[in-house]
Amino acid sequence: MLQLYFSPMACSLASRIALMEAGLEARYRVVHLRTKQVVDDDSDFRDVAPKGAVPVLVLENGERLTESAAVLQYIADLKPETGLAPRLGDPDRYRLQEWLSFVGAEIHKAFLFPTFWYKDDGSLAKPRARIPQTLSVPSAHLADREFLVGNGFTVADAHLTWALLLLRPAGVDITQWPSLAAYLERMQERPVVREAIATEMALRKTMPANAA
Amino acid sequence: MLQLYFSPMACSLASRIALMEAGLEARYRVVHLRTKQVVDDDSDFRDVAPKGAVPVLVLENGERLTESAAVLQYIADLKPETGLAPRLGDPDRYRLQEWLSFVGAEIHKAFLFPTFWYKDDGSLAKPRARIPQTLSVPSAHLADREFLVGNGFTVADAHLTWALLLLRPAGVDITQWPSLAAYLERMQERPVVREAIATEMALRKTMPANAA
Repeated sequence: MLQLYFSPMACSLASRIALMEAGLEARYRVVHLRTKQVVDDDSDFRDVAPKGAVPVLVLENGERLTESAAVLQYIADLKPETGLAPRLGDPDRYRLQEWLSFVGAEIHKAFLFPTFWYKDDGSLAKPRARIPQTLSVPSAHLADREFLVGNGFTVADAHLTWALLLLRPAGVDITQWPSLAAYLERMQERPVVREAIATEMALRKTMPANAA
Repeated sequence: MLQLYFSPMACSLASRIALMEAGLEARYRVVHLRTKQVVDDDSDFRDVAPKGAVPVLVLENGERLTESAAVLQYIADLKPETGLAPRLGDPDRYRLQEWLSFVGAEIHKAFLFPTFWYKDDGSLAKPRARIPQTLSVPSAHLADREFLVGNGFTVADAHLTWALLLLRPAGVDITQWPSLAAYLERMQERPVVREAIATEMALRKTMPANAA
């Protein structure tokens, strides 16, 4: 069975949503990102993943895959009939990759990561000044579209949904971008998305302070 | 003909290397990243790419593709026989995506970007403290491998080669990681890589201060 190493409300939430939308069973293993402990057996997460970051997807053959952009495409390709990614060879596949890169680099790594991990004002002033320009990109794209890519929910939507959810605790009010606020509301109307968030929010309350 | 909007020695260098390794003709259009001007006709680069970032690949059908992870896979898939990416459906394709994400997010966006754009010490202390842990990941991987993925040069190598080249002007001495230093030397022995770097270094000298 697939295993997903995750941390509640970290970017691995997108991989959980993808697995659940694909109807794939998986064993979910909680990681405490600050102490790098795997919670269920107190083992050292760095033995699983030297990077110390989630998501880590353990494949059926035992190999470990990291990085949301790769893990999300892997999950989607296990169930191509679900449309969670445009099929291999479809030009829209590059659009999916474009959005996965944008969310992972520009929203997560350039803004959410320093916000939750660096904390001091000196580290945060410039990422914070830059975020409105960053958010203007998906805001304009979603002004007349229901989903990021094509006409259905893809793993890129799972990724952006997570990032938008984290903006509020990061101190960014997304109602400044009405198309993003409306998109996030739409995505949260999906039963799987709602259930995934509820599961991780409940788990989060049982754990000491964590981060994205 | 394909067009690549690039800036000398910015991350778009990887896309140039990919195009040249694939033997694809392209029109190369220089962008000044600070002023957001397209140099050859003084037009506003934001009209081409609202993000204001390179690379932008203009496809044969006129569409514009952004984000290195997507542009590099697109280029590789135009010439699958070159092996610049594992073929669609090959499990190594996810390893390629994993490395493209790691280089783009962890080395570029988390370190090189703040170094060249934010500059003040307050913004840089924490990204700088983090870079040794980041570089330990490709360093360990390349200790017994010639290339990042499989047994040949891929676009992931083009991406990492660019990132490693920029570490020196960013104040990081990569001889601390002998496997990375040796890898960079090997990659620069490739005629295409050497020619791409020489072209962009020469161009860079003709332009006012730019950045990654």
